[in-house]
Amino acid sequence: MKLIRYGAVGAEKPGLIAADGTIRSLSPVIGDIGPDQLAPESLRALAGLDTSALPVVEGDVRYGVPVAGIREVVAIGLNYKQHAIEAGMKIPTEPMIFSKAVASLSGANDDILLYRGSETTDWEVELGIVIGRDCDHVSQEEALNYVAGYVNVNDVSERTWQIDRGGQFFKGKSAKSFCPVGPWLVTADEVGDPQKLGLRLTVNGETMQDGNTSDMIFPVAEIISCVSHHLPLRAGDLIITGTPAGVGMGFNPRKYLKAGDVVEQEVDGLGVQRHQVVSHSK
Amino acid sequence: MKLIRYGAVGAEKPGLIAADGTIRSLSPVIGDIGPDQLAPESLRALAGLDTSALPVVEGDVRYGVPVAGIREVVAIGLNYKQHAIEAGMKIPTEPMIFSKAVASLSGANDDILLYRGSETTDWEVELGIVIGRDCDHVSQEEALNYVAGYVNVNDVSERTWQIDRGGQFFKGKSAKSFCPVGPWLVTADEVGDPQKLGLRLTVNGETMQDGNTSDMIFPVAEIISCVSHHLPLRAGDLIITGTPAGVGMGFNPRKYLKAGDVVEQEVDGLGVQRHQVVSHSK
Repeated sequence: MKLIRYGAVGAEKPGLIAADGTIRSLSPVIGDIGPDQLAPESLRALAGLDTSALPVVEGDVRYGVPVAGIREVVAIGLNYKQHAIEAGMKIPTEPMIFSKAVASLSGANDDILLYRGSETTDWEVELGIVIGRDCDHVSQEEALNYVAGYVNVNDVSERTWQIDRGGQFFKGKSAKSFCPVGPWLVTADEVGDPQKLGLRLTVNGETMQDGNTSDMIFPVAEIISCVSHHLPLRAGDLIITGTPAGVGMGFNPRKYLKAGDVVEQEVDGLGVQRHQVVSHSK
Repeated sequence: MKLIRYGAVGAEKPGLIAADGTIRSLSPVIGDIGPDQLAPESLRALAGLDTSALPVVEGDVRYGVPVAGIREVVAIGLNYKQHAIEAGMKIPTEPMIFSKAVASLSGANDDILLYRGSETTDWEVELGIVIGRDCDHVSQEEALNYVAGYVNVNDVSERTWQIDRGGQFFKGKSAKSFCPVGPWLVTADEVGDPQKLGLRLTVNGETMQDGNTSDMIFPVAEIISCVSHHLPLRAGDLIITGTPAGVGMGFNPRKYLKAGDVVEQEVDGLGVQRHQVVSHSK
């Protein structure tokens, strides 16, 4: 099942992508897609709907963040060996955990904002995990039972702020527009094995990243288990799982985003994002 | 004005501390104290109430987090020179920004949990800023206009996880119970100058920290301005401003919390917290 939230920023409505490719409204059934709609029984109820009976949503829609009310964006750093090497950092021996501000969340095709004075804004295509039920100290064996689904995410990063301005990544990971998610939340049953997904990103049509989640140092189950031993996870929390090689700071000379650039990215089965890079008006 | 939320976890009700020291219920007036109640006009309306006409809340109450629906806990690292020195870290030249998980928030007298295997759980009394209105790229001159009030906070920290396990502080700052807040949200007008507040912490009656916000490297206005240039701040966001010297890792030999310890802390005008340290049942 591919769940979406469509419409203007702050006024998104719930929907899904039907088997025939049409967008169907879920408004007759649920008020929104938030933490309470992600539990296994809630998802089963949605999966049991006759989608042909749901209203078709016509025309081009804006895809909002496919889950409302995300309370935490947890990120895993340096989870692909070649990326750790290109970043000039040590290959981690356990998951490196940091966070992005929830206020950085944005829609799958929303603009990426270049902040005033920023010369090192960079891209990172990643597999995102959406937690379906609260969990605390879960084992690796149980971990996947707590997953509602998966999403395509860009962990947009201002490298100077992230690395050179105090050393805590949060500073360079949290700006407005720095966490586009979607277009779809694809439920775990439809994704199957999360360690077999190709993920790709282009800038102005040129391929920058072309990796596969099979190359993760710490797979999804280990990530969830590890995070849940350090903080309580709640339904709706988003965990992003690291990026493969090919980010801007890995090139020589380095390549960073500039106004007018177009970033496109895809994770197998999770849909495509397309972003225009624009200067932040502030 | 001293605003509170009292009652069982997840079922807190709004209230205030009246001039006569009684707790008065705000339930006849507002549903809760959340981001929407923190704007200047909302706080003015509350300040204009005849508190003697509000119901008295009798008996001992549990103090919950005094603001519901906090969406971000932003933390400033190493903001007191002597603490940076005791921590063995470089004195920062601009605010170091990291975050704590929102799920770490807890009440002013709630237990502090020792996680399984943790041998380095430490204390940090701090002044907390509660943002009253959304802000983005605000100047230092304007910054204090965006403050709803101030709170007493303990930035509880698992030092091994924070420092030795990947280097991103979030991992050791985000466990359940690691961010007690309150008992009160004291509005900015009542606090006056936030750079003149003593802050103290004892463990089992022994004074560990005894500092003053006048010793901050980066004062409140500069912190708010700096953070707002890196991420959008929203009403209800909590910014904690760093801790003075006297944390457990600053002693030789180091002192860390163990089950049965009692932590008490006060920030001038912002009330007292008292925590029992207990083993996490998980």
